[in-house]
Amino acid sequence: MSCRFLNCGFMTSPGRTAAAPDTEVVGENMYQLIKDLYPICRSITGNGVRATLKRIAQQIPITVHEVPSGTRVFDWVVPSEWNIDDAYVITPTGEKIAEFKKHNLHVLNYSIPVHKKVLLGELKQHLYTLPEHPDWIPYRTSYYKENWGFCLSDTQLQSLPDGEYEVFIDSRLEPGHLSYGELFIPGESETEVLFSCHICHPSLCNDNLSGIALTTHLAEYLAKRKLRYSYRFLFIPGTIGSITWLALNEQRAKKIGHGLVVTCVGDGGPFSYKKSRRGTAEIDRAVLHILRHTREGFREIEFYPYGYDERQYCSPGFNLAVGSLSRSSHGQFPEYHTSADNLDLVQPQYLKESFATYLDVIDVLENNRTYINQNPKCEPQLGKRGLYSSIGAPAGSGVREMALLWVLNLSDGEHDLLSIAERSGEPFHEIDKAAEALRQSKLLEEAG
Amino acid sequence: MSCRFLNCGFMTSPGRTAAAPDTEVVGENMYQLIKDLYPICRSITGNGVRATLKRIAQQIPITVHEVPSGTRVFDWVVPSEWNIDDAYVITPTGEKIAEFKKHNLHVLNYSIPVHKKVLLGELKQHLYTLPEHPDWIPYRTSYYKENWGFCLSDTQLQSLPDGEYEVFIDSRLEPGHLSYGELFIPGESETEVLFSCHICHPSLCNDNLSGIALTTHLAEYLAKRKLRYSYRFLFIPGTIGSITWLALNEQRAKKIGHGLVVTCVGDGGPFSYKKSRRGTAEIDRAVLHILRHTREGFREIEFYPYGYDERQYCSPGFNLAVGSLSRSSHGQFPEYHTSADNLDLVQPQYLKESFATYLDVIDVLENNRTYINQNPKCEPQLGKRGLYSSIGAPAGSGVREMALLWVLNLSDGEHDLLSIAERSGEPFHEIDKAAEALRQSKLLEEAG
Amino acid sequence: MSCRFLNCGFMTSPGRTAAAPDTEVVGENMYQLIKDLYPICRSITGNGVRATLKRIAQQIPITVHEVPSGTRVFDWVVPSEWNIDDAYVITPTGEKIAEFKKHNLHVLNYSIPVHKKVLLGELKQHLYTLPEHPDWIPYRTSYYKENWGFCLSDTQLQSLPDGEYEVFIDSRLEPGHLSYGELFIPGESETEVLFSCHICHPSLCNDNLSGIALTTHLAEYLAKRKLRYSYRFLFIPGTIGSITWLALNEQRAKKIGHGLVVTCVGDGGPFSYKKSRRGTAEIDRAVLHILRHTREGFREIEFYPYGYDERQYCSPGFNLAVGSLSRSSHGQFPEYHTSADNLDLVQPQYLKESFATYLDVIDVLENNRTYINQNPKCEPQLGKRGLYSSIGAPAGSGVREMALLWVLNLSDGEHDLLSIAERSGEPFHEIDKAAEALRQSKLLEEAG
Repeated sequence: MSCRFLNCGFMTSPGRTAAAPDTEVVGENMYQLIKDLYPICRSITGNGVRATLKRIAQQIPITVHEVPSGTRVFDWVVPSEWNIDDAYVITPTGEKIAEFKKHNLHVLNYSIPVHKKVLLGELKQHLYTLPEHPDWIPYRTSYYKENWGFCLSDTQLQSLPDGEYEVFIDSRLEPGHLSYGELFIPGESETEVLFSCHICHPSLCNDNLSGIALTTHLAEYLAKRKLRYSYRFLFIPGTIGSITWLALNEQRAKKIGHGLVVTCVGDGGPFSYKKSRRGTAEIDRAVLHILRHTREGFREIEFYPYGYDERQYCSPGFNLAVGSLSRSSHGQFPEYHTSADNLDLVQPQYLKESFATYLDVIDVLENNRTYINQNPKCEPQLGKRGLYSSIGAPAGSGVREMALLWVLNLSDGEHDLLSIAERSGEPFHEIDKAAEALRQSKLLEEAG
Repeated sequence: MSCRFLNCGFMTSPGRTAAAPDTEVVGENMYQLIKDLYPICRSITGNGVRATLKRIAQQIPITVHEVPSGTRVFDWVVPSEWNIDDAYVITPTGEKIAEFKKHNLHVLNYSIPVHKKVLLGELKQHLYTLPEHPDWIPYRTSYYKENWGFCLSDTQLQSLPDGEYEVFIDSRLEPGHLSYGELFIPGESETEVLFSCHICHPSLCNDNLSGIALTTHLAEYLAKRKLRYSYRFLFIPGTIGSITWLALNEQRAKKIGHGLVVTCVGDGGPFSYKKSRRGTAEIDRAVLHILRHTREGFREIEFYPYGYDERQYCSPGFNLAVGSLSRSSHGQFPEYHTSADNLDLVQPQYLKESFATYLDVIDVLENNRTYINQNPKCEPQLGKRGLYSSIGAPAGSGVREMALLWVLNLSDGEHDLLSIAERSGEPFHEIDKAAEALRQSKLLEEAG
Repeated sequence: MSCRFLNCGFMTSPGRTAAAPDTEVVGENMYQLIKDLYPICRSITGNGVRATLKRIAQQIPITVHEVPSGTRVFDWVVPSEWNIDDAYVITPTGEKIAEFKKHNLHVLNYSIPVHKKVLLGELKQHLYTLPEHPDWIPYRTSYYKENWGFCLSDTQLQSLPDGEYEVFIDSRLEPGHLSYGELFIPGESETEVLFSCHICHPSLCNDNLSGIALTTHLAEYLAKRKLRYSYRFLFIPGTIGSITWLALNEQRAKKIGHGLVVTCVGDGGPFSYKKSRRGTAEIDRAVLHILRHTREGFREIEFYPYGYDERQYCSPGFNLAVGSLSRSSHGQFPEYHTSADNLDLVQPQYLKESFATYLDVIDVLENNRTYINQNPKCEPQLGKRGLYSSIGAPAGSGVREMALLWVLNLSDGEHDLLSIAERSGEPFHEIDKAAEALRQSKLLEEAG
């Protein structure tokens, strides 16, 4: 199993901008970004989101959009903005527990302000734990129903004595804005490739600081390249963020030809691909081709209308070709939405592999074209063009003969290079290399 | 595995006629009908058929049709009517064997009258036994070639001494009529659902008194319901009966949108479904969906041009969407066409399960509609409509959230509820319930 | 497993020319032809090819075409003609090795003339061996790059002492002709069935003297028959031969409706079928049907653009329905392209089986027609036509009842007999026999 990362065709081919990134460095840099963002308390709105976008903006020139609370976005309304400074519980014995300042998961995300004394019985109705993982703090939210609450370890819950508790949440839920970041990198074509990550989770690393880190580094890398497609990067709160963007950019969304929701790319699980609603879109075929050739044990997941923002991009009124490429997938790892989704769960090595896989997919999209064999009647004589070996010696061109023959045989205008790769069993980059050699020999021309 | 019988959507939904039958009672009633009909000697014509139809008419208001012998029906001619009063063989020792009055299978069905003395050698050319089941009497017919004969146990055959035998068959094969029963229950739509059972077999319980009993009770049950489709029930002799009905109702047959041949529904074997010739008709999808979700170990059988009356309904000139839903299938149980297909082989419990499965299928047909999501751009906010849980609590609506999301995502005019059920893996009734909730929330409208 | 060889329908049906060949004799005759041709040194051009065609012409009336060197054929040019009289190497100790007259594989095919003394080091650059089979001589060619060389056993190579060697190749590479043989047998239809074999290999039996022998005997056999299709037999050098024929017969090629490349049909391996590029052409379906019903363990190979002359016939500008039916397939047996592909590897028994399989396939092509059921509404009454048994007795017609029912049910103009055979699971010849019986009973007519 090897990744094609270091010699992506569209980066190293003659006439194209060169130099693939040093993957080790990229893996470390992604991890560093996660470390920087980890302490911030994010939500679907508020200053935590702004701080996050500010840190990203140090690396790539995103535009930050502020959408006022109350804005109607399709069936939804942009909610009030939530901010929080402190929160804790004081036990009957005077102990301070569930301190927001020690871990921001301790507070039910979007809690309204509260400061009062309650008996244990009432308090328990506002406490959330994970009995199956008694030492972990769960992550819970209440965006669209006003509530307050605390999350803590089940071990701590079990130890709480009867008596009166002081609960304190110093939060504000007031009209404000929904903030999101956006970066557009123009390419030769107006057709866009979308990378969308959610930025609403507080101290949770795999879901989804890893997605933020990968998207940021992908944008940074692609910004320096000559590109066929245009690329759009969205850093948005989950659900309400994608709904907001789609509502404000309904026409623009039609230009999205391919897309991926970037999430859970930092853990050590095998790769997973959740297909777009279409199921056989080019992005689906491209990702699955790369995974088949480079990632043993990957999982292919049919679209279902749950999970991350692909739910919105794939709603029937848009039906965009947007899938989701991750390591462990939505809800399928024990640390999901708990304090165990921390800086130990994600690792530079895994981030690096994910980054490389995303680049491989982009390489397919950038180079997948449909050619017409200019000598369709019988095979052309490859030998006289230096493209065919004699007496068993390898051809000097470095191109696989079988790849040449497949490209010639199937370049009838009905097969793009990716479908030739799929039918032949050859990896895309070998098919692409063969096509390039044949194009240079005037044996191929791109289809009208 | 559970059957949906007791809460079929189309029976219990608001505004629809309520009250599913008490299945225990239905099972017992079906069995009682079988017991009543068991002694009668039926054939493709004759008074046994009339007596059978008369008993059915005590329960449901069927019309009895009498088609004269000699009537041309496509390539066939309605045969002479056969009636029989008595038949037996007297052995050289004076013993009376193969007595028709003890078991009507003893006589070759459609035997011409005979009364003469024959030596054992000649007699044997008219005797039929089952050496592989030496104690069972086989069931044999000779409708279209004049002949006489007796069926008996192989044990008895082996014990017959040489000598002269008296054979006596008091039958009449004369111009008369072919009799069949028909019931039409009109629904909102002119499109019909056909249930067809054959009534030509004498004392044989699974094949096909069970089919008669199930069809009768289905008709009785549906007659009291408000129905989307119209329903037609045919009680006909096999082959010549369906050919006759199709020949006399060629235009009417075009209104049959879905249909099932009802047979072998009383034994304890796993369910079997033989698909229509079309193979992917709605009836095929509906039955297989129900079996997948409620009947472990069921068998899916591709159409073949043999078996029961689906042969005629699926002839290329009609090609109706008619399959056959049974327990053990045609010829696939040892008791098939023998005296062992008796009142012990069929049981109220099995009849009840079959009845419930037929109701489940009807439920799918009645409720399978195609809707259009009225909020197709992004998901609607289900929470504000009380259709979505918060903080992990189950939604108060009793509707599965995944079912809601699937219906919304696929209600693009190209998927009926059944196909949404199939793609989602949810049972049809959950999808139907979700669709109803969404319809009431104005989020769905039926497709034009 | 039995082959249908001895009663191919199109040979033995009433009104058709009778008498299948004696397979034992055919197997022996094929083997004898291989023995006659084995010693000849063939190449893509030259007198060896002419001698081969002359021997074939003793058996069937082929036309021999001579295409001048230098003729442009699509992207290629007919090469100079190669002839050789002698070749050998004399070792420092005076031993004569790699003698062409002992085995014509010893010389690199298409070697230019050479006569000089060289040291062992230089000589080794012109020697080819097979270290993995140290006693076998490999077969090597250099058609399109001028070179000289010798092939020998690796054992001998390892024993060569240092010193000066005399190399001698008495060959001529001069303008001349490319020779090929062709036979056309007209049938009722202008649509042609192509059988193409390559005749360029020297002393190699399975690849492809076996193909020459089978093609010759097939032509001899079919020439005496009344045929529906026209048949074309090509005896051509590999690659350049098919390219030449296609270039000179571009319009004629459009009449080829079905075709097979005949090669490697004499060894004892299981049958293999490499599909045409189309993949579901009638020839693909016919061959696979026959193999499924008669040849256990056969292999079904998807088209790939390498192998034998199907590469040219299936180039995108022609895309002919030409597959390749063999025993062991291209490159997949250890003796491939070595001196071990000799008279021991091929056997009359295997040749006979291959011949029979080819005849079975031709039988399907000749008799595969589409009929229309003239009594499409319900089943016709087969009994009154003597086509249906009564009381379990086999029908006198010798026709399977299920085959009759399948043909009637599917003869709606959309299914040819082969597809009816495939869907029913019945062998084609039973379906064909049933169709013939129904046609004679006026129940079928051929589709428009």
